[in-house]
Amino acid sequence: MKNIKTNEQRLWNSLMEMGEIGGTEKGGCCRLALTDLDKQARDLFTEWCEAAGCTVRVDKIGNVFARRPGKNNDLPPVVMGSHIDTQPTGGKFDGVYGVLSGLEVIRTLNDNNIETDHPIEASIWTNEEGSRFAPAMVASGVFAGVFDLEYGLSRADLDGKTMGEELQRIGYAGEHEVGSPVKAFFEAHIEQGPILEEEETSIGVVTDAQGQRWYEVTLTGQEAHAGPTPMLRRKDALLGASKIVQEVNNIGLANQPNACSTVGLLQVFPNSRNVIPGEVFFTIDFRHPNDDVLSKMDQQLRDVCAKIADEMGLEMKFEQIWYSPPVPFNTSCVDSVRQAAEDAGYSHRDIVSGAGHDACYIARVAPTGMVFVPCENGISHNEEENAKPEDLHAGCNVLLQAVLNQACL
Amino acid sequence: MKNIKTNEQRLWNSLMEMGEIGGTEKGGCCRLALTDLDKQARDLFTEWCEAAGCTVRVDKIGNVFARRPGKNNDLPPVVMGSHIDTQPTGGKFDGVYGVLSGLEVIRTLNDNNIETDHPIEASIWTNEEGSRFAPAMVASGVFAGVFDLEYGLSRADLDGKTMGEELQRIGYAGEHEVGSPVKAFFEAHIEQGPILEEEETSIGVVTDAQGQRWYEVTLTGQEAHAGPTPMLRRKDALLGASKIVQEVNNIGLANQPNACSTVGLLQVFPNSRNVIPGEVFFTIDFRHPNDDVLSKMDQQLRDVCAKIADEMGLEMKFEQIWYSPPVPFNTSCVDSVRQAAEDAGYSHRDIVSGAGHDACYIARVAPTGMVFVPCENGISHNEEENAKPEDLHAGCNVLLQAVLNQACL
Repeated sequence: MKNIKTNEQRLWNSLMEMGEIGGTEKGGCCRLALTDLDKQARDLFTEWCEAAGCTVRVDKIGNVFARRPGKNNDLPPVVMGSHIDTQPTGGKFDGVYGVLSGLEVIRTLNDNNIETDHPIEASIWTNEEGSRFAPAMVASGVFAGVFDLEYGLSRADLDGKTMGEELQRIGYAGEHEVGSPVKAFFEAHIEQGPILEEEETSIGVVTDAQGQRWYEVTLTGQEAHAGPTPMLRRKDALLGASKIVQEVNNIGLANQPNACSTVGLLQVFPNSRNVIPGEVFFTIDFRHPNDDVLSKMDQQLRDVCAKIADEMGLEMKFEQIWYSPPVPFNTSCVDSVRQAAEDAGYSHRDIVSGAGHDACYIARVAPTGMVFVPCENGISHNEEENAKPEDLHAGCNVLLQAVLNQACL
Repeated sequence: MKNIKTNEQRLWNSLMEMGEIGGTEKGGCCRLALTDLDKQARDLFTEWCEAAGCTVRVDKIGNVFARRPGKNNDLPPVVMGSHIDTQPTGGKFDGVYGVLSGLEVIRTLNDNNIETDHPIEASIWTNEEGSRFAPAMVASGVFAGVFDLEYGLSRADLDGKTMGEELQRIGYAGEHEVGSPVKAFFEAHIEQGPILEEEETSIGVVTDAQGQRWYEVTLTGQEAHAGPTPMLRRKDALLGASKIVQEVNNIGLANQPNACSTVGLLQVFPNSRNVIPGEVFFTIDFRHPNDDVLSKMDQQLRDVCAKIADEMGLEMKFEQIWYSPPVPFNTSCVDSVRQAAEDAGYSHRDIVSGAGHDACYIARVAPTGMVFVPCENGISHNEEENAKPEDLHAGCNVLLQAVLNQACL
């Protein structure tokens, strides 16, 4: 079975057809979680899976599982998958590649009339991006018991609409309980960083994922007329926020290598050109593969935010809204991925994931591994995100063999 | 006639009733230009003026003039007025006090059966705040020939709706040509700064208004995933913008006394917590009463913005969208205000206006003066904006006598 390959063109065509749902003028994709576009994409995936002979079920948090039966359907399945929601200016590969490479594995097994011992499933995990509903990876988190179901369903977007309401609205509030035994889970994904491309390596064998801390900060000063309010009498919330933006960047720089620190979202109130900003809300995203360093960054952030707010006479509401510890992946699954790359003759290297993935949560309840493939200039969460058909094909072949390795007794 | 006084309670009641249109929970007012609320406020003013025997006309940019006839109606009118639009989180006095004190002067002349030689008018100037449609003071600017009518009508809000469309929609696209001879123009206004209150002075005799420069800046970097994108490979537009926010503040501090510098509006794209910001749009507001210093500040800003954009590898679009030179008010009108305050026995001082006002444009085409009264803590453009009935009354009495001084031969 080690000679079986997936179909490069079929995988590419599926990615391109799916990418049209929410496709943007610049060639990217805007398909926010639980919008009408997300529903369209879920419907298309379901149609394709049923055409491939799968039985599709949906759980109460909207995760979708398409099952190809094995010889013994009492055994837990080997599951592949990722997400199909995107950032507002996202690309056509982040997430959806992991979903459709799972489908391509199933189609390839069909083409070759291969029956596995364990059943095999391709899956979609709801709201991985966290862009519309914070936090990210919430539905794989519910599956893994990190969050309870009620918490997941009550996550609200900026308009106050909850995931539970939106799942009902688009018809993906399923009947099935969330969480069930899994023999092994594999997620194929573009690297979203520059390493594989720079080193001209086809396959990243993901050994670990870095830890993350997410924060929300609100600074409150005093809004006043920009003309007659003397500089020294001001309480300018945006001036305070801009100092913190600088310090967030400094903390990232001070904890190299590997630290990342970002203010991605910032809102100004009342946001009028001739009014001194009275309030600013912003988010902070910290990442590091070493939990001790991540804790040190956390303390540095708390100290500097308190100092700036105090010096400027601003009120501050500071909250860590999410913490995800560094994740070591399962040795057996990591070995299956490495061996599959080696057997196929693909260049490969061990790599640490800089981004969070559904696999990071699933790793808490099932043996889990990930396959990375290069993406152009390491760019993702951007409409210019791109990947080569041959790299995507290589990653899909590695996924196929790693799955076979785990699904056959 | 020097003993005639306006009616403090009637003025206050009118302010409170008008303040209910767009009134906020915190006691402020949100009545953006050319919204349905602006229409309601215009309708109420018109109703009150007609009840006071005035003839109301509207010009093509929506300015409203309520005329009380004089002995010789071929003479140009003495005009009072200001604006009734507010900031998104504005107060009940900024602008509307100048409009309703004009109405109170007319009501008082009626009460005392006084006939002036010149006709007298109370006016509303469209979109003074510049909050919904930039730039500020656009309709008094058209009146003064600073802008042409087409420019004024084509100003668009963030949704792309133009002033012309919105004037049509609310029924205030008038028939009258914009601009006509004015004997003298007076604008009563809260100070919007702390000086009068701190010095316990009732009346500010406004001699000059400071010059202003407004800018719009767009920084473009590269949006990318906040996790796997190494710190040193980033082009973070928000990091660049936050450096410029600091420098804008530094330039204001470096040009004391009197300089003001503010970033009031800032928008981040795509504004997602785990995406490095690819683009930031923001505004800058510079003010100084000395044109040479204002030019120096302009050069400092251009230098520092170019340096930051260059160092960070960001593209920058930098545009000065508005320039208003410092304004000296008319000696005769300023004298009329000062004399009225002196005659009434009010404490008074000469003062420079920190904010722009419709009077700054009208001063280009008619003899113009302004009357300032204290406001609480110098705060405006804020729902907490407040003023004392007795101070508002004193300012209205000064307005009355200054108008009589100019309107009687």
